[in-house]
Amino acid sequence: MSTIKPWSEVAPRLIEVAMGRAPADMVITGGQWVNVHSGEIVPETDVAILDGRFAYVGPDASHTIGDDTEVIEAEGRYLVPGLCDGHMHVESGLVTVTEFCRAVIPHGTTSMFIDPHEIANVLGLPGVKLMHDEAMDMPINVHVQMPSCVPSAPGLETPGAELGVAEVTEAMGWPNIIGLGEMMNFPGVAAGNATMLGEIAATQEAGKTVGGHYASPDLGHAFHAYVAGGPADDHEGTRKEDATARVRQGMRAMLRLGSAWYDVAAQVKAITEDGVDSRNFILCTDDSHSGTLVNEGHMNRVVRHAIAQGLRPITAIQMATLNTAQHFGLEREIGSITPGRRADLILSSDISALPIELVIARGKVMAKDGALTAEIPHRTYPEFAKNTVKLGKMLAARDFEIAAPAGANQVNARVIGVIENQAPTKALEAPLAVEGGLVQMDRENDVCQIALVERHRATGQVTNGFVSGFGYNIDCAIASTVAHDSHHMIVVGTNREDMALAANRLGEVGGGIIVVSKGKELALVELPIAGLMADERAEIVADKAQKMVEAMEACGCTLNNAYMQHSLLALVVIPEIRISDVGLVDVTTFKKVDLFV
Amino acid sequence: MSTIKPWSEVAPRLIEVAMGRAPADMVITGGQWVNVHSGEIVPETDVAILDGRFAYVGPDASHTIGDDTEVIEAEGRYLVPGLCDGHMHVESGLVTVTEFCRAVIPHGTTSMFIDPHEIANVLGLPGVKLMHDEAMDMPINVHVQMPSCVPSAPGLETPGAELGVAEVTEAMGWPNIIGLGEMMNFPGVAAGNATMLGEIAATQEAGKTVGGHYASPDLGHAFHAYVAGGPADDHEGTRKEDATARVRQGMRAMLRLGSAWYDVAAQVKAITEDGVDSRNFILCTDDSHSGTLVNEGHMNRVVRHAIAQGLRPITAIQMATLNTAQHFGLEREIGSITPGRRADLILSSDISALPIELVIARGKVMAKDGALTAEIPHRTYPEFAKNTVKLGKMLAARDFEIAAPAGANQVNARVIGVIENQAPTKALEAPLAVEGGLVQMDRENDVCQIALVERHRATGQVTNGFVSGFGYNIDCAIASTVAHDSHHMIVVGTNREDMALAANRLGEVGGGIIVVSKGKELALVELPIAGLMADERAEIVADKAQKMVEAMEACGCTLNNAYMQHSLLALVVIPEIRISDVGLVDVTTFKKVDLFV
Repeated sequence: MSTIKPWSEVAPRLIEVAMGRAPADMVITGGQWVNVHSGEIVPETDVAILDGRFAYVGPDASHTIGDDTEVIEAEGRYLVPGLCDGHMHVESGLVTVTEFCRAVIPHGTTSMFIDPHEIANVLGLPGVKLMHDEAMDMPINVHVQMPSCVPSAPGLETPGAELGVAEVTEAMGWPNIIGLGEMMNFPGVAAGNATMLGEIAATQEAGKTVGGHYASPDLGHAFHAYVAGGPADDHEGTRKEDATARVRQGMRAMLRLGSAWYDVAAQVKAITEDGVDSRNFILCTDDSHSGTLVNEGHMNRVVRHAIAQGLRPITAIQMATLNTAQHFGLEREIGSITPGRRADLILSSDISALPIELVIARGKVMAKDGALTAEIPHRTYPEFAKNTVKLGKMLAARDFEIAAPAGANQVNARVIGVIENQAPTKALEAPLAVEGGLVQMDRENDVCQIALVERHRATGQVTNGFVSGFGYNIDCAIASTVAHDSHHMIVVGTNREDMALAANRLGEVGGGIIVVSKGKELALVELPIAGLMADERAEIVADKAQKMVEAMEACGCTLNNAYMQHSLLALVVIPEIRISDVGLVDVTTFKKVDLFV
Repeated sequence: MSTIKPWSEVAPRLIEVAMGRAPADMVITGGQWVNVHSGEIVPETDVAILDGRFAYVGPDASHTIGDDTEVIEAEGRYLVPGLCDGHMHVESGLVTVTEFCRAVIPHGTTSMFIDPHEIANVLGLPGVKLMHDEAMDMPINVHVQMPSCVPSAPGLETPGAELGVAEVTEAMGWPNIIGLGEMMNFPGVAAGNATMLGEIAATQEAGKTVGGHYASPDLGHAFHAYVAGGPADDHEGTRKEDATARVRQGMRAMLRLGSAWYDVAAQVKAITEDGVDSRNFILCTDDSHSGTLVNEGHMNRVVRHAIAQGLRPITAIQMATLNTAQHFGLEREIGSITPGRRADLILSSDISALPIELVIARGKVMAKDGALTAEIPHRTYPEFAKNTVKLGKMLAARDFEIAAPAGANQVNARVIGVIENQAPTKALEAPLAVEGGLVQMDRENDVCQIALVERHRATGQVTNGFVSGFGYNIDCAIASTVAHDSHHMIVVGTNREDMALAANRLGEVGGGIIVVSKGKELALVELPIAGLMADERAEIVADKAQKMVEAMEACGCTLNNAYMQHSLLALVVIPEIRISDVGLVDVTTFKKVDLFV
């Protein structure tokens, strides 16, 4: 935003270029125009660019070429509009907005709609503002959705900050806020919750887009009521009928392919099998881990995947360009290669495999053959964003001791049961031995301890419980300050000394993810920014994250995506049972329950 | 606008209805849902409405029916979204906004995007404001496009008022201005005219839609430059390649079927033959005469016609509903039958012939079986809008005398040559006799007089010239204060006494169209509002207009659409030769020329 002049300001000079009265900054010759407006591939197209915007797109732009015009020969390659990610969280990549951009620009992403929901839970509105301002300074288009549900589960957790109608109203006046982030409290909307409806109203009154999140297979009255409440899109559908239902109701169906989300294949069948109009379908990633970004791609990965499911390439590309732009009211700014729009485009020699050979954003070459070529300055976050892990004291093994009821020799304890590859947990029970008045873990039966360490207000509070399913079989502890959604610290361990060590070490480095075993640090991903994001390159973070996964495996964990499971164990909005700073929470009844049955 | 509450205000109660916790105002049961979002026809659909908005659309709305809910049985008929006219001039119907609405609501029109370009030429910004305010009070959605080119031809005519960047900027702040009206000065845009670009910039900066009007078959550099300047739509295309070119450039192709415009058939072939994506095509009327409205229809006529050209019915309906709404940034308000939107819909038993059996707007039944059932109060225009024909004096036959150059017995005069069924004129020359120092008409060769009578500033100025092609063969005169675009008074006659009589009579009634012969009034259409619009019902106006046509025929005129030709003879932007208050204008060189060669 900050680095591109508005169309209205540039228009007089765009006209001069189009008429051949002034030279373009850049001309691309001889491409195949992937025209997302007409749905055609138009051969032999030239493109002239001035001041970061398209000035002329058509046959033979030689009249726009001057002495200083940079000329790029497309040599028959496809001219694809820069790709847009319709909904995503930068924090999922464990990097800053800047580093996220550095990672995804070589994959052809030139626009992102980011919901800084995680930092909001730690730092509140000032945290959102930090990412908002960073986003504005990017050389690509990064628009911010104001987080709507902070905390996600009022009364069941205590986040670092709270957002409500007043904060949403304030943020709607910021220049780079594009709408409201996913309205996760769908039962609240259907129940007429005044805060949720107030946030939606503030967004609608600002003329902006209300993001949805209807995470339920129920397409009955509650779904219809949610739509009537105002959310304009949804990325939580998983089935073909989910996509169709959303589109029919006037929502955009956002189909998601993230690092751990695979919701495109089933839902595109609404188009490929049932002939539903594709114009209201949008592709997005939601959550991409740094490893995915470094090794697999970003929106290019989603578009390729969508094409592989049988979509026409032009349709899949529309779903990642024009459709997204239209949804957010930006179709006269981004999403197509047409006059006046920001000059964001990709050169690719194959419309299906979509290799990203050259990336231009706002008229500047940004990346070539998968490598970033542009300079994007490192972003320095202020100190208040870097000192967010406030434990209040050095933790010791005794902080993780679980006292048995007086006189008990054995207890029947509630245990959070992790289910591989699924977000919900199982509410288990296990008989556990008591020794010296303390409840013991049961390594044989894969029951170890979990602790929620308060880290926002330095209360020193530790909430202890039990978890099963990770398979840790040696003395170890794994801790993370990424702990959705309140982002306290979750420590899982088989050994209380290791748990204390892990927690203290994260307190020392300002947050991150750590694996320790027998008093030794096996892996550490430092995430000093809000305890959520690294202050270094995505490649380095991906490398450290890989070592972290290997360290968890070395501790006996065989679970696929174990770290994600770990970080979600405090997410007190998904059944059946979770832990928060309030205690153990039954997420079927939304009530706190005792540790012992 | 004024009579419907915003979605954000109604949302809490829409949710209550959708959940079945509160009763709907109205429920329509058992329809076939014409779903313009998904492109499907969804059978067995019920619709619940509250406070003028859709609360629930889906199977079985019985849970929304209370004791006081009005229930309408669709009996398997189609539920079609109310039709939108994407660009039109109310003044072309010779009636007020109110009477236009009364005429078109029974045809299923529930949204119009009107450009009050004619009244702007007479009354300037206050005239636009009158129609803006009237539009706001309508029970259907009438959005106003701020006229961009007043005058159309600066320096070549003197309108009643002028509009520029300041006026456009001011109007963009009015609540019911949706964008800029057709930017007709396409050579100006391509030339970088500061006023035109300033008006476009003011519109873009207000986040509104810039209407286009590129009336040239040249799809070369000038066309591309025009697009780069900012206009976002165009209704002046006539050929298939015009439509495709506009869509490819990121514009909306507006296909026009007016009373005298037939631009749909050729252009829809871009969709039906070439497979161009239809989402950026919009249907509109531009200009509908009252007779067309009364006898043939409005947007229903356009949609039917489009379907008859081979479009799928759902596609044609999208082009008159959702596509239009999206273009103007109103897709969350109008254009589909989905929750939160204004409850505008049609019941029809045939998706192709599209009979309009019931019309509901904002949740109220407005018309049934072609007859308006709702009360729409008569609109009283203020006095300043009714006294706009200021002749400055009683005109006499001598005001229409054309003096020959001193001593001439014969002159070679320039003559405006009318071409049947075409807007351009021919620049003719004719040898004319001189008697008593005055140049004589030549009835044998169909050369009669034309006069442009100044009527905005009471200057008493009469500009005289010659015209050929109407075929008038008795003593007669035809006068009109509808005289595009400056709307002075055009008088055509074979007899100077009749010319004076016709002009004076129009001065007396405040404007209109009149046919006199031998001192006798044969027909009169009174248009007291700005000299452009009647103060009575469309049926009455259509009837009077029909009598006017018959009277012109009685005077010998055999030309098809003769009145339209008459009213366009001062339109100094269309070649080859026209008359204005400035004199005779060569519209190929844009220069004033002498009457005698």
